[in-house]
Amino acid sequence: MNVKQWLINGNPRGRPLQLDDFTAHETQFDDLQDGRIRVRVEYLSFDPSQKGQMENISGYSSGQALGDIMVARGIGEVIESRVQDVPVGARVVGPVGWQEVADLEAGTFEVVENDDLLTARLGVLGSTGLTAYFGLLRVGQPQPGDVVLVSGAAGGVGSVVGQIAKLMSCEVIGTAGGPSKCAWLTDELGFDATIDYKAERIKHRLSELAPGGINVFFDNVGGVALNDALTRIATGARVVICGGISRYGEARPDGPTNYFNIVFRQATMAGFLLSGYEREYPEARRRLSGWIRDGKLVHREDIQHGFENAPATLIRLFTGANMGKQLLKL
Amino acid sequence: MNVKQWLINGNPRGRPLQLDDFTAHETQFDDLQDGRIRVRVEYLSFDPSQKGQMENISGYSSGQALGDIMVARGIGEVIESRVQDVPVGARVVGPVGWQEVADLEAGTFEVVENDDLLTARLGVLGSTGLTAYFGLLRVGQPQPGDVVLVSGAAGGVGSVVGQIAKLMSCEVIGTAGGPSKCAWLTDELGFDATIDYKAERIKHRLSELAPGGINVFFDNVGGVALNDALTRIATGARVVICGGISRYGEARPDGPTNYFNIVFRQATMAGFLLSGYEREYPEARRRLSGWIRDGKLVHREDIQHGFENAPATLIRLFTGANMGKQLLKL
Repeated sequence: MNVKQWLINGNPRGRPLQLDDFTAHETQFDDLQDGRIRVRVEYLSFDPSQKGQMENISGYSSGQALGDIMVARGIGEVIESRVQDVPVGARVVGPVGWQEVADLEAGTFEVVENDDLLTARLGVLGSTGLTAYFGLLRVGQPQPGDVVLVSGAAGGVGSVVGQIAKLMSCEVIGTAGGPSKCAWLTDELGFDATIDYKAERIKHRLSELAPGGINVFFDNVGGVALNDALTRIATGARVVICGGISRYGEARPDGPTNYFNIVFRQATMAGFLLSGYEREYPEARRRLSGWIRDGKLVHREDIQHGFENAPATLIRLFTGANMGKQLLKL
Repeated sequence: MNVKQWLINGNPRGRPLQLDDFTAHETQFDDLQDGRIRVRVEYLSFDPSQKGQMENISGYSSGQALGDIMVARGIGEVIESRVQDVPVGARVVGPVGWQEVADLEAGTFEVVENDDLLTARLGVLGSTGLTAYFGLLRVGQPQPGDVVLVSGAAGGVGSVVGQIAKLMSCEVIGTAGGPSKCAWLTDELGFDATIDYKAERIKHRLSELAPGGINVFFDNVGGVALNDALTRIATGARVVICGGISRYGEARPDGPTNYFNIVFRQATMAGFLLSGYEREYPEARRRLSGWIRDGKLVHREDIQHGFENAPATLIRLFTGANMGKQLLKL
């Protein structure tokens, strides 16, 4: 069968992503091998770290290279199966890549129910939500009454971080770009306050909003957000470094010149990877699903349409156009 | 009685210290008040944080101001006492400031024995050694076999950090400026390796010396040392931010552009203040004294002479001229 794909055509290290970093391609699939399933891809998941992965490609390494299919997680319907107990018609989540049809090896995918939380498995119940959950609860360790600041709060991870912090009885401030994102955070997600970084100086607004300082800062952005927040941390603060989306387009991104304030504040700045918490995923998913079904956790998906728009959809993330988890429906 | 003092004459924020940041002054002391002792100052202690304190002065605040006596800890002999149980002739450690004679209020000083460890109470048994002890053991949490990197390793704090790390069965690498400091670290203090930052690129040497990465980095320096070390940390590394002496002379010092590597390495960067550990000082001093008396901890003092040289002695610290704890004998 004939299958459309998007291949990696450029390494965007030190510059913004461009449409021509990808090449449209069409290939002929052979017969399905034993121990694999063939799925028709229905949804693709988008994540800022995908640009980071592209920056590590090399034409010479044995890993991901120019000309490879762009890597991505997604959801698909099984159209052919040579794996026991995985019937045609089942829905799976797995590393489908940017292609209309994907062959997946047993062990690399998970069969999921085709219920109202289907796409949530790429977002709030997938790595996005799990990143928010473990990063906030395990690394940030919020205590009731703590002031929690989230940068990139209207993004997939940030919007979940802020809501979990509210569930933990914290006071939550989010930074986001523009009045509509800020209104969504306060009116629909229950954030206590927001800072529109396009219109306001984060540092000055934090002095007003959190005169006693920030106890937990969950950073998805880097750059000015991180540097400003570091001047406003409270004694014993936990700074959780999760993402640095403001840095992705820059050849030589700045470091946080105010890092030394962690000494005066006896504070900690910590990075983490989701893979450190794998054994606890089921428990985390159980709690996240419970909060969603109880109406305590709002998850919003920004769904673009059409396989031809995959490159443009990834670029959206870096222009701040998305509100909530970025997906593409094929 | 007539007493010579050094007053603060300039705020060195964003620039190197200069001799004329201090003014020589002479004042007349009144009769000693009740509840105080009068001491003839014998030794003054010097520390990079003293420049930081000067940078926070303001002519208008009620705190330290231009024209005030320069603050410093020191050792003196009691020449007059109006405090019960503190006899004339006793030795005390306390906040004497830059003056030949100081009046100290009961509760602000400690009576110490006039033994072979007298001056060590300003260094390895004072805040310098305690900073090394708690910063390394509590914040850095070195495990046997860990690779520990110390920047500014020939300084008062760094030289103690490296030796305690050796006592904890770690592999210890120190950065220092120049071959004589490096030789002292390996030949006398037992460091496993050194990097002469004036002659070698820290980043490149670390790849050779610690191919498996740095488990604990104790940073007294900031700047290039911190940024280079961040590219070479191992998974789960602890980066202890203690000092930033390379930053003191700069108007807009850089931040660590490589900070984001703490995400990929699931690492932590933590600041601390000694004051968080006050209740444990006696235990720490007991262990430090034991190591010194057993010959396991070498402490070196760089003793300058003459009260008139106080400003020049502080400036020495920032030119990297000192080896070991910087003191001035009056």
